[in-house]
Amino acid sequence: MDIAFALYTHMTALDLTGPHETLAHLAGVDAHYLAARPGPVRCDSGLQITATGVFADLPRPDVIVVPGSGRWREVLEEQGELVDWLAAAYPHTTWMTSVCTGSTLLAKAGILTGRPATTHWGAREDLRALGAEVSNARVVVDGNVITAAGVSAGIDMGLTLVSRLWDDEAAQAAQLFLEYAPEPPFESGNLETAPPNVVQRLGSLLDLR
Amino acid sequence: MDIAFALYTHMTALDLTGPHETLAHLAGVDAHYLAARPGPVRCDSGLQITATGVFADLPRPDVIVVPGSGRWREVLEEQGELVDWLAAAYPHTTWMTSVCTGSTLLAKAGILTGRPATTHWGAREDLRALGAEVSNARVVVDGNVITAAGVSAGIDMGLTLVSRLWDDEAAQAAQLFLEYAPEPPFESGNLETAPPNVVQRLGSLLDLR
Repeated sequence: MDIAFALYTHMTALDLTGPHETLAHLAGVDAHYLAARPGPVRCDSGLQITATGVFADLPRPDVIVVPGSGRWREVLEEQGELVDWLAAAYPHTTWMTSVCTGSTLLAKAGILTGRPATTHWGAREDLRALGAEVSNARVVVDGNVITAAGVSAGIDMGLTLVSRLWDDEAAQAAQLFLEYAPEPPFESGNLETAPPNVVQRLGSLLDLR
Repeated sequence: MDIAFALYTHMTALDLTGPHETLAHLAGVDAHYLAARPGPVRCDSGLQITATGVFADLPRPDVIVVPGSGRWREVLEEQGELVDWLAAAYPHTTWMTSVCTGSTLLAKAGILTGRPATTHWGAREDLRALGAEVSNARVVVDGNVITAAGVSAGIDMGLTLVSRLWDDEAAQAAQLFLEYAPEPPFESGNLETAPPNVVQRLGSLLDLR
């Protein structure tokens, strides 16, 4: 099974590595790390992850995983080649998936028009403007498209995807391998639970590259 | 603040990127990606992450984060240079931290002798044999050392570390940025909750590189 991970400048590393870790270790998976050009791809944190091929290498992967970015508006302007590849590959994929603002790239490729989808809480209006029916759910499955909310939601999405590609037992095994029994030390993981002072603090705390 | 992420062949990508994503975006952080040699480092999934420097570049970082590996026994034999760097740097660090079987590298460096620490559920006996007092907790703080359980526990560890380096509000803001309000689709994240058939399935499902 060919699973293509779409890499691009300014992507968020954890958006990629969350679902990647649930999938890439499974027997029978051929993981492909594709970008517009091969070589190191710089994430929005400064971390660099290597693209080992280009989009054109794999026009019809079975599964595509598209991470998001803290700079998604720039990315939407810059990543035309990625968007074109998504649009062309989509009719042939078993599953098209995104994490975080990766859903805005799917939407720009015309894949989410009039369909339920989720994204990072900070990008809901942008996704709506691109034609999706925006949900606040953590993971949305609609036909053969799965979208996840912000960053860490990619782990939940990845396990959902394993359960669909294999079965629930396989997803449980992947969860055990990742020791995914989360114990967040605080209750501040989304806009509904974060206190107003925390939302305000975020602006002065972040330094996106 | 200099935060050093220790990279090595066969590391687990999510062990690194979980805490990395909680820390690297924060204003004032200088993130360093160090290995025995600069260049792409191959993870146990096949993903490659770039080391932008070597251990010797930074003998006294403020914080060190050591990821684990699905092939930790080989790693303990192979990564002597990393272990020596950890042992020499430890007396000067504000925080020494590990995720998953990264704790076995800390133990080999003599940092965990007689001290409480945690690790991936599959490596508890190995960590005990290396002299630590093994806990099954998800995150263990002991003095200036923080150890995390397997893979995804690095996110919980990272948020705990942000709360110690800054304050609880900063950690809550990082949690909000990562949208870390987990909703695992199954209850199978550790040995205590995973059904026996799931534990058995894991062996035939995994294909560690």
